[in-house]
Amino acid sequence: MPVIDGLRLAACAAGIRYPGRTDLLLALFDPTTTVAGVLTQSKTASAAVEWCREHLRHGMARALVVNSGNANAFTGMRGREAVKQTAHAAANVAGCLEADVYIASTGVIGEPLDPGKFVGHLGDLADKAQADAFEMAARAIMTTDTFPKLATRSCEIGGVAVSINGIAKGAGMIAPDMATMLAFLFTDAAIEPRALYDVMAPLVEDSFNAITIDSDTSTSDTALIFATGAATKRGAPRIARGDDSRLESFRAALFAVMRDLAHQIVKDGEGLTKFVQVTVTGAETKAAARTIAKSIANSPLVKTALAGEDPNWGRIVMAVGKAGEAADRDKLAIRFGEIEVAKDGEVAPGYREEQGAAYMKRPEIDITVDVGVGDAAATIWTCDLTKDYIAINADYRS
Amino acid sequence: MPVIDGLRLAACAAGIRYPGRTDLLLALFDPTTTVAGVLTQSKTASAAVEWCREHLRHGMARALVVNSGNANAFTGMRGREAVKQTAHAAANVAGCLEADVYIASTGVIGEPLDPGKFVGHLGDLADKAQADAFEMAARAIMTTDTFPKLATRSCEIGGVAVSINGIAKGAGMIAPDMATMLAFLFTDAAIEPRALYDVMAPLVEDSFNAITIDSDTSTSDTALIFATGAATKRGAPRIARGDDSRLESFRAALFAVMRDLAHQIVKDGEGLTKFVQVTVTGAETKAAARTIAKSIANSPLVKTALAGEDPNWGRIVMAVGKAGEAADRDKLAIRFGEIEVAKDGEVAPGYREEQGAAYMKRPEIDITVDVGVGDAAATIWTCDLTKDYIAINADYRS
Repeated sequence: MPVIDGLRLAACAAGIRYPGRTDLLLALFDPTTTVAGVLTQSKTASAAVEWCREHLRHGMARALVVNSGNANAFTGMRGREAVKQTAHAAANVAGCLEADVYIASTGVIGEPLDPGKFVGHLGDLADKAQADAFEMAARAIMTTDTFPKLATRSCEIGGVAVSINGIAKGAGMIAPDMATMLAFLFTDAAIEPRALYDVMAPLVEDSFNAITIDSDTSTSDTALIFATGAATKRGAPRIARGDDSRLESFRAALFAVMRDLAHQIVKDGEGLTKFVQVTVTGAETKAAARTIAKSIANSPLVKTALAGEDPNWGRIVMAVGKAGEAADRDKLAIRFGEIEVAKDGEVAPGYREEQGAAYMKRPEIDITVDVGVGDAAATIWTCDLTKDYIAINADYRS
Repeated sequence: MPVIDGLRLAACAAGIRYPGRTDLLLALFDPTTTVAGVLTQSKTASAAVEWCREHLRHGMARALVVNSGNANAFTGMRGREAVKQTAHAAANVAGCLEADVYIASTGVIGEPLDPGKFVGHLGDLADKAQADAFEMAARAIMTTDTFPKLATRSCEIGGVAVSINGIAKGAGMIAPDMATMLAFLFTDAAIEPRALYDVMAPLVEDSFNAITIDSDTSTSDTALIFATGAATKRGAPRIARGDDSRLESFRAALFAVMRDLAHQIVKDGEGLTKFVQVTVTGAETKAAARTIAKSIANSPLVKTALAGEDPNWGRIVMAVGKAGEAADRDKLAIRFGEIEVAKDGEVAPGYREEQGAAYMKRPEIDITVDVGVGDAAATIWTCDLTKDYIAINADYRS
């Protein structure tokens, strides 16, 4: 990962839930840094999400504090107090206003988070913080993740090269609604907060909001982008509007980072054995195509068939039917990769079960369904549902 | 089960999918029999569902043919032909119009159903049909079910005793949308078709439509009620309107039969170890309460926690949050049975984890959630999600 000028990172094991596990991340930003983000639409959003929602309005950032092990969600007044104490401590070590501190928490829901466990470490982290610590940062925010998730792209603004780095976490409770379970994006570009939001927010739909592991939407989904503006030292312009044509390269690079991270989250889906792309075409609207694709991607019967390498396309028909969106049963067509499985509302003339069975043995599965009523399409990424998902989640807290 | 005058039943093993398994049911009705029903809202409904939807309009019935092993869903023109041939053969043996024959099919989706395999048996079944064969009938419609589902109640209409018997099947692909995967109700009451519908249809909401095993809605959900009218011989009145006050006892008994069957379906949920009742109170509307209760009941993370006997109420908070309906996080309250777990948006002061853990060891779990924004309530019944569900569904077709 390249260095992002204007940003320093540090992490440590604060013992928030398990001893000896890196669980606290501090990021420090230069004073020119702008911030934008999208947060969960959950009606039971965490205290940290509420804090970010309030402070994103002014759009400037000096520090980011993330803990794993405890989501500080559904913790009432004590949860709000914990966020305030964390912001106060981080503002002290960063020499900034509390309002310039952004906070995210991930882990178990409903247990009080004691900030006394970790605020004492912030000063030390600030001293140690360095530009070249992205992998450590990505590890610090993991919970049931089995690998750290990082992505980077470079692009240009006004002819000047800038970088975009991202880290993310998530492996279960993944069906993001406006954002995913913790993704942080960093760039040295100089972009005003409103423009940063206007560029980033529309890209969420086909990246973080286009994945689902288990249909369960977290209380803590947070995706934030920090732009340090350090590239101005190298002659990059400061961009004030999201529709500025000089953002074209940046927008494409940012989308690539976001989709890369989103795919990494699915590829770490709890207990998975398959990475699955579901594309729905021929729908009335893009929203309808998304709804049908999610209905397929979230169906326990489709997901268990995938786990069993069973080309049980009848269950895909079922999932189209239950989605509630317009579909012409008698025009429905299904493909596995390039294999034509069903056509005109019944099994395709040349399809043989052995073809489907052989295809299902692959680690990456492409399912395309045409529902025969319009021109709109959408793609959703998901994974299969295995006994290991059950094992991981039947005793997550023990 | 008591006999229903005006109704005879027979079943046999026709070898539709597996040899030696009872998979064909024929019911014959006296000419006075009325019928009403509700059918799946799936956009990929089966050929048999389409047939029933068309013929329910006239409301008279002489025969019911049900096969298990093949759902005859997504089978195109051949599927429609199979239904016609079945109706033709059954009309011949029953001596009635094809339009008086009702058909249901359950089993694998997408494979052509060959009626040649079983229509030859219908004459023999008609000869053998008898009044006292409800258990055999309930067994004939089973697929992954582990026990036959029967229920009965008696009531009175105009002072005359009448009976209501019901049979049902279903253990997976259960999230009924207007009906469940095959339920058949029989009564000797004399009730005109429109009145029969008006009595029965509203009762579906809190019986078959209030259960979910895996959130997957079948292509074949069918609930039909047949009223033979034979009770008129014993002086029962013929009822023409659903709001006739003489139906009070009948309505209560019918609802009891329907809910009994619905609960039996959940208690046979694939791989289950727990029967779970989720009640949501304090919602804005009943529809909102149902949506939130279903969000909890369908959440893979809630269901796996139940399987692991983990009192992980944080996941219930998550599921309330993702439901999209109004909820006041800071007034949210959760109870396990009589145990107060959470209150005013955080863990209840007196709650100890040991209490919740002990409660979770029970085979039947009651979860009550108050969302603090209104007066409406709803209850949904479900089961847990275990490794056995995965095992059953990862190789259902093999």
